[in-house]
Amino acid sequence: MAGSSFGQIFRITTWGESHGRAVGVVVDGLPAGLPFSEADVQKELDRRRPGQSAVSTPRQEKDRVEILSGLFEGLSTGTPVSMLVWNADARSSSYDAIKNTPRPGHADFTYQARYGIRDHRGGGRASARETIGRVAGGALAKLLLARSGIRVAAHVLELGGIRAGPSSFEEVLENVEKTPVRCADLKASEKMLEAVTFAREEGDSIGGIVEILARGVPAGLGEPVFDRLDADLAKAIMSIPAVKGFEIGAGFEAARLRGSEMNDPFRMEAGSVGCARNRAGGVLGGISTGLDLVCRAAVKPTPSISKPQQSVDLLAGKDTEIAIKGRHDPTIPPRMVPVAEAMVALVLADHMLRSGFINTRTLLEERDF
Amino acid sequence: MAGSSFGQIFRITTWGESHGRAVGVVVDGLPAGLPFSEADVQKELDRRRPGQSAVSTPRQEKDRVEILSGLFEGLSTGTPVSMLVWNADARSSSYDAIKNTPRPGHADFTYQARYGIRDHRGGGRASARETIGRVAGGALAKLLLARSGIRVAAHVLELGGIRAGPSSFEEVLENVEKTPVRCADLKASEKMLEAVTFAREEGDSIGGIVEILARGVPAGLGEPVFDRLDADLAKAIMSIPAVKGFEIGAGFEAARLRGSEMNDPFRMEAGSVGCARNRAGGVLGGISTGLDLVCRAAVKPTPSISKPQQSVDLLAGKDTEIAIKGRHDPTIPPRMVPVAEAMVALVLADHMLRSGFINTRTLLEERDF
Amino acid sequence: MAGSSFGQIFRITTWGESHGRAVGVVVDGLPAGLPFSEADVQKELDRRRPGQSAVSTPRQEKDRVEILSGLFEGLSTGTPVSMLVWNADARSSSYDAIKNTPRPGHADFTYQARYGIRDHRGGGRASARETIGRVAGGALAKLLLARSGIRVAAHVLELGGIRAGPSSFEEVLENVEKTPVRCADLKASEKMLEAVTFAREEGDSIGGIVEILARGVPAGLGEPVFDRLDADLAKAIMSIPAVKGFEIGAGFEAARLRGSEMNDPFRMEAGSVGCARNRAGGVLGGISTGLDLVCRAAVKPTPSISKPQQSVDLLAGKDTEIAIKGRHDPTIPPRMVPVAEAMVALVLADHMLRSGFINTRTLLEERDF
Amino acid sequence: MAGSSFGQIFRITTWGESHGRAVGVVVDGLPAGLPFSEADVQKELDRRRPGQSAVSTPRQEKDRVEILSGLFEGLSTGTPVSMLVWNADARSSSYDAIKNTPRPGHADFTYQARYGIRDHRGGGRASARETIGRVAGGALAKLLLARSGIRVAAHVLELGGIRAGPSSFEEVLENVEKTPVRCADLKASEKMLEAVTFAREEGDSIGGIVEILARGVPAGLGEPVFDRLDADLAKAIMSIPAVKGFEIGAGFEAARLRGSEMNDPFRMEAGSVGCARNRAGGVLGGISTGLDLVCRAAVKPTPSISKPQQSVDLLAGKDTEIAIKGRHDPTIPPRMVPVAEAMVALVLADHMLRSGFINTRTLLEERDF
Repeated sequence: MAGSSFGQIFRITTWGESHGRAVGVVVDGLPAGLPFSEADVQKELDRRRPGQSAVSTPRQEKDRVEILSGLFEGLSTGTPVSMLVWNADARSSSYDAIKNTPRPGHADFTYQARYGIRDHRGGGRASARETIGRVAGGALAKLLLARSGIRVAAHVLELGGIRAGPSSFEEVLENVEKTPVRCADLKASEKMLEAVTFAREEGDSIGGIVEILARGVPAGLGEPVFDRLDADLAKAIMSIPAVKGFEIGAGFEAARLRGSEMNDPFRMEAGSVGCARNRAGGVLGGISTGLDLVCRAAVKPTPSISKPQQSVDLLAGKDTEIAIKGRHDPTIPPRMVPVAEAMVALVLADHMLRSGFINTRTLLEERDF
Repeated sequence: MAGSSFGQIFRITTWGESHGRAVGVVVDGLPAGLPFSEADVQKELDRRRPGQSAVSTPRQEKDRVEILSGLFEGLSTGTPVSMLVWNADARSSSYDAIKNTPRPGHADFTYQARYGIRDHRGGGRASARETIGRVAGGALAKLLLARSGIRVAAHVLELGGIRAGPSSFEEVLENVEKTPVRCADLKASEKMLEAVTFAREEGDSIGGIVEILARGVPAGLGEPVFDRLDADLAKAIMSIPAVKGFEIGAGFEAARLRGSEMNDPFRMEAGSVGCARNRAGGVLGGISTGLDLVCRAAVKPTPSISKPQQSVDLLAGKDTEIAIKGRHDPTIPPRMVPVAEAMVALVLADHMLRSGFINTRTLLEERDF
Repeated sequence: MAGSSFGQIFRITTWGESHGRAVGVVVDGLPAGLPFSEADVQKELDRRRPGQSAVSTPRQEKDRVEILSGLFEGLSTGTPVSMLVWNADARSSSYDAIKNTPRPGHADFTYQARYGIRDHRGGGRASARETIGRVAGGALAKLLLARSGIRVAAHVLELGGIRAGPSSFEEVLENVEKTPVRCADLKASEKMLEAVTFAREEGDSIGGIVEILARGVPAGLGEPVFDRLDADLAKAIMSIPAVKGFEIGAGFEAARLRGSEMNDPFRMEAGSVGCARNRAGGVLGGISTGLDLVCRAAVKPTPSISKPQQSVDLLAGKDTEIAIKGRHDPTIPPRMVPVAEAMVALVLADHMLRSGFINTRTLLEERDF
Repeated sequence: MAGSSFGQIFRITTWGESHGRAVGVVVDGLPAGLPFSEADVQKELDRRRPGQSAVSTPRQEKDRVEILSGLFEGLSTGTPVSMLVWNADARSSSYDAIKNTPRPGHADFTYQARYGIRDHRGGGRASARETIGRVAGGALAKLLLARSGIRVAAHVLELGGIRAGPSSFEEVLENVEKTPVRCADLKASEKMLEAVTFAREEGDSIGGIVEILARGVPAGLGEPVFDRLDADLAKAIMSIPAVKGFEIGAGFEAARLRGSEMNDPFRMEAGSVGCARNRAGGVLGGISTGLDLVCRAAVKPTPSISKPQQSVDLLAGKDTEIAIKGRHDPTIPPRMVPVAEAMVALVLADHMLRSGFINTRTLLEERDF
């Protein structure tokens, strides 16, 4: 059934396959009166797009966004914003080999099991090209959040087992685009880059951890009981291809702490309630505390590797071997950074509207009408 | 806005506060023709109920479920099943101290920030008593799943830093109720119990990891793109109070593996497609593979500790100290076991109906009408 | 699948069967800070309850509402409000005859066809007792709307072919409870009462038209494209048992007008945009104009009649005859008045929250926190 | 908030403005394995498209559909189907006059009141061009329904006060496309055509009634309590621009019948339960009876008329006069026929999937995989 939509009030619906004619998104629920342009969206798509560095697939896609509706004289109109990107450099023939031989770690087998048919070319719907729609929708969410003083930033915290040192929110913003691995710790970046290179040379791939931060989130965002802010963030992040884990604040480390270590003591800070530390990661009881949101995604190594692997021939019903050709990222986290930011921005925009922090009807003042 | 419902087709709506008159749930979307009784639901509630052992709060609640609708002559009728449990042993006066002093690590401050008013007694809506509704709804989900050969089991994998040794699915089922810590590794259980006792004696608390398994899930369950099985599981588990992290299969460990280590090779097994191992945890591309679902929740230590903590007086607007009295679990994972099972069962039942593996209209055959 | 919920932000979920233990509703999405009490809800339920006059069933039900959650110190807390009414005077044995013989015009046959099982006693889930939950939820919606100056009123416009003369909004409010037929035109009321009496004496029943008005609705309420205010009103009204038609403004009469007659000319009225007339019924393009909402429901005659009717014996698979005993309303519209008001109030409250006219987070000012 | 989606399982999301770059739809929830092509969709769009006859606007649009996703080797893949139509013949300058002067009977004023900004060209989002997405989505719904033996047909029952004589389902199918007014009664068609011509010559417009029929709907379709088949049909039909009323079966006439006249007696028909007549219109208690669905939409006269009308100048804040130029249909019902069919098909397809009559996972048999 329909599972290609995300969000309650600010809702995106993505569509498209890797080697189909185009991929796109419909953004419904963007309030009227937001200034934006194709350039705002393109800026984010350019961060996501392949072929940019040694750590990503050489597939060449300009990924030029076209906005087809919902924008009039530079402002959102409150009606759905439809955006698309044409698929250009699709070499479908490289995928003939996998039509009947599912790639380990990929969705080939499970799509076949579910639907009985699949567009196998380039992974079809399961391709990371689907995330173009998320990033385009997330670009609008970011613009909306910026008006309320909320900023979202992600970076690669760990890659191939190499852990970055601590960085402040501002350092992340400043450094993340400086290196192809998108790690805010520039020293660690170099080692990560070596690890990527080494893995690729061996026909293998590596995984890592992406950390996403949000600053400026007001206290009081999130819904009990099921639509908690952290539960919605978990769903958002876990819905990104290749993510196998999610944590917020102390996360899995919390399992090893004492209550007295984990609880963040409250204290007055310039007339407001603050916390001496932020092991909660900005959420208590599913509702934001006003401190920075801090969450992390565990990303598995790219399943597409050139090393030979065991698989099965679905037609013949017997074991076989597969060596994946084609153009692939040797590691996913660097390219996931803008996608993870987009998903977090989508959750926050949706909850800002759900909780009444941003008016759903229009951003324009009565006097502007 | 409305956030107290979970599920698309099999949907529960929970209601109630810790010290209000009752807590309950409405289950909508249960197909007609399922045999069940209050005893089926009571069995699960008895596993969740407090006052059972040294590791849980001494609050005494019988937690007798009453089924008020949707059940006729021993069968579900396809109409909503309303279930409630009256609150009995509620000592509200113990909570006067926290009315204006939010407990660190609790939802007191964030509810106040969100709503400007809250039922502070016993944590109100944020209390773990809310999970009674989930467990009651989950009991029906389990019965439904059992008809399709699906079983769900959870156990405490780690507590206070003590990790259990490996257990098979059947061992988990067999051992989990044998010890108060609900760990399938009986040896590790003893050490865990000591850790709990030690923490409580110090007026402190400990966290842990709950692992949830599901066996018998058919290949092909889950929806691309956003309603992936693992994304919905993540939301379900992260919506349980005190959970700070979620992972599936190799989870965070996947971030440190090579692609060649992480990918589970396919192979033919008695005419069907299987896998040589299960690092994916039963899901690829958001759709089930047919192997066991294996996921884990990171649970923080109980925030209610008797040790004095820093907090603020919201009325006076200044720093103060708080020492939490009342009856509390020194650790949460053992009591979370039935709740985590319920949430996973709810996700699976919903997706079995969404994907057409179970008929939504009725479970009765035409000839039985 | 789950179809017992109504509304997006202000959402009710009703449950319960006519002869089950109780009927009830969970209201989710009511903002925090609304003052209310059981008396507010009871007032509306008393209008709906049977046994009040010659035109309704003699079934005696006190229909005392119990509020079980979401209310604290006289204010809503933003959490779900659970309300129930116990079923008392249920004489199930009168319904043995219909177990296998579906009553014409009733849902007996269709429930059986859909589910293969049904609680046949008193119509089970299809009974008008289900509307208790709607009226209870609608009572809270009305209180919320009143804060924004919105009032909802319904009355019987036509009964058994007798049409009432025109009444103003204030006359409807003033007169509707003065006669058992709930018609604002007191002269027509007398004739309607005669028609009801006459039909009952013949063992038959009559239908009619209920008109629902809302005053104070601001311009700008409603969502393009599918969640139009009038489309949501249509669904709300058509979901009430026995309703066979819905119209807004000129309604079906619009089909016979010229454009120049149907279009309501705009004009300035004390600095605001108004209309010289209101054939649109308060909605253009699915969005409110600021004029009164005026819509109508066509209500069929009560299907339960004592006259013998043709039916079938489902077990024997052959034709038979049925004469319905038990206690029934000889006409439905008078008792539908509070139900129709409730449904319109629910739609308006939901849209006021969706469109940001009422804040979803809390009704309390920051300074009240 | 997001209101551009319709349906629960089979869900369409439409986007686009009359004079924007394109209009389109994303269909999510179409099961895998349905054979279809652009030609199937084009056939329905050709019926909807303007410029076809004397009774419709001379605006020339080819309305060529492009399918961008979800279709592979001639079959649906279960993933979203994105379809678009480019806007070609858009003469925006004709609309300058209405930028600040709302047209009576149009959504100009209400969109402005809601959003504070609108794309005024050609009515923007409120234009009937939005229905292209509905018709394209409905074309797929029809194909899906056809596999289950369900056919949907609509016709103009009344136009400008001229009522057609009765036609059978087959006559409707056969005759509806024979005349530009799309009335199955060919005699009445001629008079209707005269009425249209006469109204246009006077610079005015006329309304009418569209009747929609569905044959082959199984008994047991529809959800209690709120998602009744007739309630969902009402919402679907009332969401079409210019519809002011909806009725099913006897509809408003039911208000004037006795119970003994309205109730359709059951009887055995070749071993199944049937009815001697169909005043219910195919639905009892919100669930289908298995008889033909029969419902009707009251359509107001086209609000765009060339006769001068009173309006206001929103900028100057004073009364003014408006005479609408541009190309408009003198009557709407004939062009609404395919749109109404589409909406009914969408509701039926959604409910067939919701009720488990059609499998949501895939239409392919296991052996076809």
